[in-house]
Amino acid sequence: MPSEVIYGINPVLEALKAERQILNKILIAGGKQGAVLRALQRLAREKGVPLQVRPKEVLTQLARTDHHQGVIGLPAESPYASFEDLMRLTRSASGYALVLILDGIEDPQNFGSLIRTAEACGAQGIIIPKDRAVRVTPAVFKASAGAIAHIPVIRVTNLASTLEELKKEGFWIVGADSRAEKSLYEMKFDMKVGLVIGSEGKGIRPLVLKKCDYTISIPMKGKVSSLNAAIAGAVILFETLRQNQNRDSEKAVSVPVSVKERIRTSTDANN
Amino acid sequence: MPSEVIYGINPVLEALKAERQILNKILIAGGKQGAVLRALQRLAREKGVPLQVRPKEVLTQLARTDHHQGVIGLPAESPYASFEDLMRLTRSASGYALVLILDGIEDPQNFGSLIRTAEACGAQGIIIPKDRAVRVTPAVFKASAGAIAHIPVIRVTNLASTLEELKKEGFWIVGADSRAEKSLYEMKFDMKVGLVIGSEGKGIRPLVLKKCDYTISIPMKGKVSSLNAAIAGAVILFETLRQNQNRDSEKAVSVPVSVKERIRTSTDANN
Repeated sequence: MPSEVIYGINPVLEALKAERQILNKILIAGGKQGAVLRALQRLAREKGVPLQVRPKEVLTQLARTDHHQGVIGLPAESPYASFEDLMRLTRSASGYALVLILDGIEDPQNFGSLIRTAEACGAQGIIIPKDRAVRVTPAVFKASAGAIAHIPVIRVTNLASTLEELKKEGFWIVGADSRAEKSLYEMKFDMKVGLVIGSEGKGIRPLVLKKCDYTISIPMKGKVSSLNAAIAGAVILFETLRQNQNRDSEKAVSVPVSVKERIRTSTDANN
Repeated sequence: MPSEVIYGINPVLEALKAERQILNKILIAGGKQGAVLRALQRLAREKGVPLQVRPKEVLTQLARTDHHQGVIGLPAESPYASFEDLMRLTRSASGYALVLILDGIEDPQNFGSLIRTAEACGAQGIIIPKDRAVRVTPAVFKASAGAIAHIPVIRVTNLASTLEELKKEGFWIVGADSRAEKSLYEMKFDMKVGLVIGSEGKGIRPLVLKKCDYTISIPMKGKVSSLNAAIAGAVILFETLRQNQNRDSEKAVSVPVSVKERIRTSTDANN
């Protein structure tokens, strides 16, 4: 899949660091050297990924741009994971399962940004439809700051029926819809969540919206009351994380109570 | 300031809708017609902004791009407001004053996105330094989805001394710093807040960071634990809005207490 090469120093470094090895080979432009290159060589050796020197022009041709900083990674396989792989991951997630579903995001910057945010918020994976949406391209990889190497992306033919499969797995489907009466902050994300974000202009498609168990909107205060899809997604994803970390720390706080119980009991025994 | 023209149908429409009239004249490409154009003509007439037809090539030359969709707005004046204007706005803000300070954001997409988010969260203004930062360009206007027409942007020579002036006005300066121990969610935004966001790569400059009363970080869960400046800013800005809306609704709930007092008093009087 030569059109899906990864280019640029940081994206290639991030790809190398991924648990799932996604690089087959790394190409370095002739004449390139320095500390960063040495770090890259060391990491490639550790990970068993071969590294070859090629003329700069070859890299430019493969990357289809000259913004490759002299480093290109050739992917080992399809950049997509399977729905089954994702379900295995969510089943083993401790209490907090989160899957991001993107309905018709067409801008590579927004797609990459949403991948990066989803990864930062501990989501287990991202589902995108095969049609009417961006694929994983080098621009997406770059915009994700390499985060895509750490989170599986699943491409499905029929998003509506995939949502049904998610429901069978115990997921609740929450759609972001600016017309929704329920506020993001009224929603309790204490369940397995499939969060659907639509495109900025068109929102979630009606057939997909019908599959949502809840729709939520983001309360705003300004005059231009719409948000870019990447920003809207980030605000909701971080709210799920905030709520779940709160719950985790509440659990952590509740531990000393039983300790106190034990202390009191032992004190009682001493009296 | 011909290099600062606003182009594209929606950006020009948003600029027309602004309270502060920022357009001097609108140029339409010859041959352009349709419902959107009629809406634009109607609005321009209402707002008293003259509209002229020009060859498409003239628009392309002024916009320095052909992505103008046949519509260009020529700005009336400098797109920047004064610090004094901003302070007047924050003094009249009811309880909730918020100013966004951007230290060294260089990417027009990120700048535009932060303007849009700040406006959506009810911030009163944005402060940027004159050096080492983007200016308000057509790309920024477009990325802000026109929100810049509704929120003043202030350019200052010395950001550190501006922060001192903000402090004199009763502001507390909160810096976003990934190394900060205090979490965003531990911060109570129940004060006049000057929120400082640095550039993605370099963060807030040391001299500016020294002026911060608090530094906060965004808790994350993933392996790639960094965020784009526009995303980091959005997460913090929406948390300030969430807390303030919560407080507002608590206040709303607390009103009936005094009402109850009165009811009880009048009941007592009757007894």
